[in-house]
Amino acid sequence: MTAEFNLIKQHFTHATKHTDLGVGDDAALVHVSAGHQLVVSTDMSLVDVHFFQDAEPYNIGWKSLAVNVSDMAAMGANPKWITLSIALPTINNTWLLEFSRGLMACASAFNIDLIGGDTTRGPLNISIQIMGEVPIGKALRRDGAKDGDDIWVSGHLGNAALGLQLLQKKLPNVNEETRSVCLKAINTPQPRIALGLALSNIATSCIDISDGLMADLGHVLKASNVGGTIQLESIPCLPDIRAQLEEPDTQRLLLAGGEDYELCFTAPSQQRENIMDVAMELRLQLMRVGRINQTDSLTATLHNKVLNIKHLGYDHFSSQT
Amino acid sequence: MTAEFNLIKQHFTHATKHTDLGVGDDAALVHVSAGHQLVVSTDMSLVDVHFFQDAEPYNIGWKSLAVNVSDMAAMGANPKWITLSIALPTINNTWLLEFSRGLMACASAFNIDLIGGDTTRGPLNISIQIMGEVPIGKALRRDGAKDGDDIWVSGHLGNAALGLQLLQKKLPNVNEETRSVCLKAINTPQPRIALGLALSNIATSCIDISDGLMADLGHVLKASNVGGTIQLESIPCLPDIRAQLEEPDTQRLLLAGGEDYELCFTAPSQQRENIMDVAMELRLQLMRVGRINQTDSLTATLHNKVLNIKHLGYDHFSSQT
Repeated sequence: MTAEFNLIKQHFTHATKHTDLGVGDDAALVHVSAGHQLVVSTDMSLVDVHFFQDAEPYNIGWKSLAVNVSDMAAMGANPKWITLSIALPTINNTWLLEFSRGLMACASAFNIDLIGGDTTRGPLNISIQIMGEVPIGKALRRDGAKDGDDIWVSGHLGNAALGLQLLQKKLPNVNEETRSVCLKAINTPQPRIALGLALSNIATSCIDISDGLMADLGHVLKASNVGGTIQLESIPCLPDIRAQLEEPDTQRLLLAGGEDYELCFTAPSQQRENIMDVAMELRLQLMRVGRINQTDSLTATLHNKVLNIKHLGYDHFSSQT
Repeated sequence: MTAEFNLIKQHFTHATKHTDLGVGDDAALVHVSAGHQLVVSTDMSLVDVHFFQDAEPYNIGWKSLAVNVSDMAAMGANPKWITLSIALPTINNTWLLEFSRGLMACASAFNIDLIGGDTTRGPLNISIQIMGEVPIGKALRRDGAKDGDDIWVSGHLGNAALGLQLLQKKLPNVNEETRSVCLKAINTPQPRIALGLALSNIATSCIDISDGLMADLGHVLKASNVGGTIQLESIPCLPDIRAQLEEPDTQRLLLAGGEDYELCFTAPSQQRENIMDVAMELRLQLMRVGRINQTDSLTATLHNKVLNIKHLGYDHFSSQT
């Protein structure tokens, strides 16, 4: 048996729960549930772009899957299967064991089967494809936001961006709790699958916040052919951040800080009570942060003053983490 | 609009034929046909491992998809959708245009929709995930070979391995036709989708020959818990190769030369006539090259003499092209 097959057998072959034929043939076989559409997405994670060279392999495993799961959440889909293509510079069994442990912890948390993959030698590159299911016609898309809809955000924004600064040793003086929360946000983000599923008959559009609120909400506005306003003071965040809302750096953190993997969604105002019920049920903070309008632009205000935010997002080809 | 979105829009957004929602949202939406299983596979292609640094971008595009399509062929599946994750060291529009042209030529040849993807900056890495359909229970698997079955091979073997030697400038003295055929085999392989579909009720097992006949047939034997024998002189190949069957290098070419992406399949002897009908219908050479037996090993003979073949396959972690 060759090294490649040993590698697959040792680290990437796990029992599956809803798969007809898993790892080991030319392809895997699965059933899509009757009355459902298949939902498909893919994300590639690279060293020096998506994580640092010295990142914990457990965290790399968790996060490289979590960012894919988050795309399922944004569609209101139930994730079921992944394939993993991985390029490795060397075979380091300790690293692989921890990477696999993190990946499978995330898979297990969301009841996902690993059904296939490819391993090859090369600069570290983790490419995951995720497949899920959604009842026909019930997917949360980007193109359904309507004039007058509320704009909502889940959880806290800015934590992952603060966490990134901590990893870059830029913020030595935050308290221990903030430090812990923010490092968890950047290292092991929690995709909002339960929220996406709960919003199925409530939200008019949805996206996950991977590149920053302004950039991601911008995609929704463009796809829906509408505009919107955001009230900075309404964005849920840590007290440490809220205390400095007047600072441009803080504003950038909340409006353009990426990688929180919270959901941003729109819904008519009649849904406010239903959304509060969802928040209670999921024990998850859901905040109204703005409103859709008929303009063709997105503006952000702080206490009714329009902010001048230049850096709206994160572009893999113009900047790197 | 950021550079990443321009890139996706310019090179990777194409009209789809059987997709509910394609590139542009958090995920794509498709329908799997009633009475069918979803068939899923993935392959990663890297510079210096799967292709040379100076390879034509058109060929890289074609081949990185073709190797995935070949996995569908080996399952007897009908390919329908792909996602593409690509890491690029720089944005070279000329390169991307040619890469995209090759990729989409292959997609179009097999009626495949590109439904999603991811682009990022990094060492060149092309990761494709392919999804197809097969009627429930009709997939061609590796584990169905039975004692007494014939072993069959499609097309010619050894062409791609010869083509690789040509690319490596190791074989300056072959004639122009051989040269052209072999370069085509290594650069733009033709996956055997029509054959896989035709074998649906005929073959007991099937695999595509990516790592060499002995290695790939070895997977079938292991999965099916049987053994087999191969008659070297029965393997279909170019006359130039056939003329030197006694040479160890030639034997290695036919038994361990990879990347031909022909199909190797097994079938009971009662199916010989049906298989000849398939060959006629598809205008594709199908040859009986051996037989399954009850041993636990694979042997190769030349004119009834057992050959001693040490190098049975290709392992990404022990050797590189």
